[in-house]
Amino acid sequence: MRIVDIKERTISTGEKRSNAAMDFSDMTTGFVAVMTDVIRDGKPIVGYGFSGTGRYSQNAICRDRMIPRIFAADSDSLLNQAGDNLDPFKVWAAMMQKEKPAGHGDRAVATSTLDMAVWDAAAKIAGEPLYAFLAKNYGAGEWPDRVPVYVGGGYYAPGRGLPELQDEIRGHLDDGFTIVKMKIGGAPIEEDVRRLEAVLELVPSERLAVDANGRLSLKEALAYGKALAPYQLRWYEEPGYPLDFDLHAEVAKQYDSPLATGENLLSMWDAKNLLRYGGLRPDKDLLQFDCALSYGICEYLRTIEMVEQEGWSRRSIFPHGGHLLSLHITAGLGLGGTEAYPRTHQPVGGFTDGLEIADGFVGLPELPGLGFEGKANFYSVVSELA
Amino acid sequence: MRIVDIKERTISTGEKRSNAAMDFSDMTTGFVAVMTDVIRDGKPIVGYGFSGTGRYSQNAICRDRMIPRIFAADSDSLLNQAGDNLDPFKVWAAMMQKEKPAGHGDRAVATSTLDMAVWDAAAKIAGEPLYAFLAKNYGAGEWPDRVPVYVGGGYYAPGRGLPELQDEIRGHLDDGFTIVKMKIGGAPIEEDVRRLEAVLELVPSERLAVDANGRLSLKEALAYGKALAPYQLRWYEEPGYPLDFDLHAEVAKQYDSPLATGENLLSMWDAKNLLRYGGLRPDKDLLQFDCALSYGICEYLRTIEMVEQEGWSRRSIFPHGGHLLSLHITAGLGLGGTEAYPRTHQPVGGFTDGLEIADGFVGLPELPGLGFEGKANFYSVVSELA
Repeated sequence: MRIVDIKERTISTGEKRSNAAMDFSDMTTGFVAVMTDVIRDGKPIVGYGFSGTGRYSQNAICRDRMIPRIFAADSDSLLNQAGDNLDPFKVWAAMMQKEKPAGHGDRAVATSTLDMAVWDAAAKIAGEPLYAFLAKNYGAGEWPDRVPVYVGGGYYAPGRGLPELQDEIRGHLDDGFTIVKMKIGGAPIEEDVRRLEAVLELVPSERLAVDANGRLSLKEALAYGKALAPYQLRWYEEPGYPLDFDLHAEVAKQYDSPLATGENLLSMWDAKNLLRYGGLRPDKDLLQFDCALSYGICEYLRTIEMVEQEGWSRRSIFPHGGHLLSLHITAGLGLGGTEAYPRTHQPVGGFTDGLEIADGFVGLPELPGLGFEGKANFYSVVSELA
Repeated sequence: MRIVDIKERTISTGEKRSNAAMDFSDMTTGFVAVMTDVIRDGKPIVGYGFSGTGRYSQNAICRDRMIPRIFAADSDSLLNQAGDNLDPFKVWAAMMQKEKPAGHGDRAVATSTLDMAVWDAAAKIAGEPLYAFLAKNYGAGEWPDRVPVYVGGGYYAPGRGLPELQDEIRGHLDDGFTIVKMKIGGAPIEEDVRRLEAVLELVPSERLAVDANGRLSLKEALAYGKALAPYQLRWYEEPGYPLDFDLHAEVAKQYDSPLATGENLLSMWDAKNLLRYGGLRPDKDLLQFDCALSYGICEYLRTIEMVEQEGWSRRSIFPHGGHLLSLHITAGLGLGGTEAYPRTHQPVGGFTDGLEIADGFVGLPELPGLGFEGKANFYSVVSELA
């Protein structure tokens, strides 16, 4: 078998919405289709991938560097030992040839986009949902029926007051979520406390998390920590600049409730340095590395191994992103839980259509691969490629 | 005044040459031209920039993200207070709008490419070489006649034995260089020691540096350190993975002669973490952050400020890259010295044609801006853009 073609496209995914650090109005997202010559039910198997949320399309890097290297490789050299399926690690190594060490930025997203499509194709060729393929080949061999999920929301938007914020939160609870995350750090601290208290009228504090999106200085992060401490929230996310490990260590010393960070660390090495120097606490803090932003599943498996070597449990990992990739790796590799973006970051946010969310858990799709075929707004974008 | 257009092109700059970590055969380099409506000698002033050596062209990121943001800004908002020249910091802020924190990779090179062209244009509008423009506005107000320079070479290549290596080194010495850097780590340690001894027949050990290009494990890096220690070389460069700060700290404990690293840290924050956690020694080690790879001069000024806050001298900084940008910032901002690539990495490697190199120093070009107009092979590539 072999990869016969890789197609790609980029669409505008801008949304009128912001957090403390980002304005998403011009956002673009890349999609790829890895087309194989394996025929199933009369049609060739195609794997799909998307570039992770919030980092712009990286498809030019796919086009100029990664895709030509995949086709420059002998197609047999990309297969597993039996020769009947792609070996995603061999494809990964082929596309990363001739890349310099470090400098983990946009190319990490480009690589993830293609890596995702390769895993989607490989699981489809094996005839299994990706979580099952991962669990059998790279995990504990078993998987749950459903996994813990929380919903990311509570954004700032022009003209959005406390009633609108409460309406959004009510909607999330009606949808079956029990843990809710809201943005902070984009308004004065007193206003954020008022927003927090408005949400706490609807959600108990142990089920509310807050996210500062890495925007705060050390002084501000500590001030927020002091203001948040009495509420004993579920977690306080990205208090400061993602690479300011000293800041995280200082906040962890002064703020007793759980912290969370990691979505903007785009490689195993950046994640390792967070654990080495960030002062985070394995018994309570959350690690949110985003597989779709950090070189894909091949690298994520290395990251999980590193996390365990550093004395953490893989249950501390709650992948950022709120998309199907995070859901599959959470279920297949035994991670702690996943985020959900049911309405934002479309068409990549959210899971397959109709997937049950109840009591703070999300079920798993039964389609082969990642199940993009069961998410109509996603599939309408990628089906044109195949 | 305003920027009327920004044009860009990408060319293949592949070379049959490798070091311990990289094969350069497919390398591409991007070029940009920032065209202004300022007329000087009957022609509009144009600033040029290139994407730094060894990191592939990043022009798609320029095209898709940075350039549209520059033109979306009110053109007056990009000028200095007098309104008679571009303010490079304002242009930098405009092009970095809506970019997420951290994840410093390819976009750092794209931003540098445009930043360089903006500074080239600004210095030309001021009618000064860039080093003078930098020294007067952002430095000590004065500059030297020439700056210390060393030559990067001693690569591995198929069929290249000790006589060819010695011939190359003789050529560098004939060219006026006194300090020479050679590659190690791409061959077994015993072979590298033979290569080293062959070069030491021509160059005293205090004038020879070696570069492992970040490829060695901790064990290997320490073994090389032990083998190199008796020679007391000028420096031992990139012993291990650029983000493995613990490794650097361990090597620094066991290896007494100078170390050097930093070319693959693509932002002020990555550089800061090296100084915080890498165990390097301000009294002897070298910092080699590459301005053309790490968000350009605007960010480099922040990096220099950070270096001094961390207790280092700016004289410890020897920018990687061997190109005109490194030469200008070394002279204009009082850094320790610059690398040179007189023959490799063309057309961006090396300085203006005919610039005097003697006794281990390189003179400064007198042309306005970076002086690309005085480097024929570079100018033939970019002049088509204007």
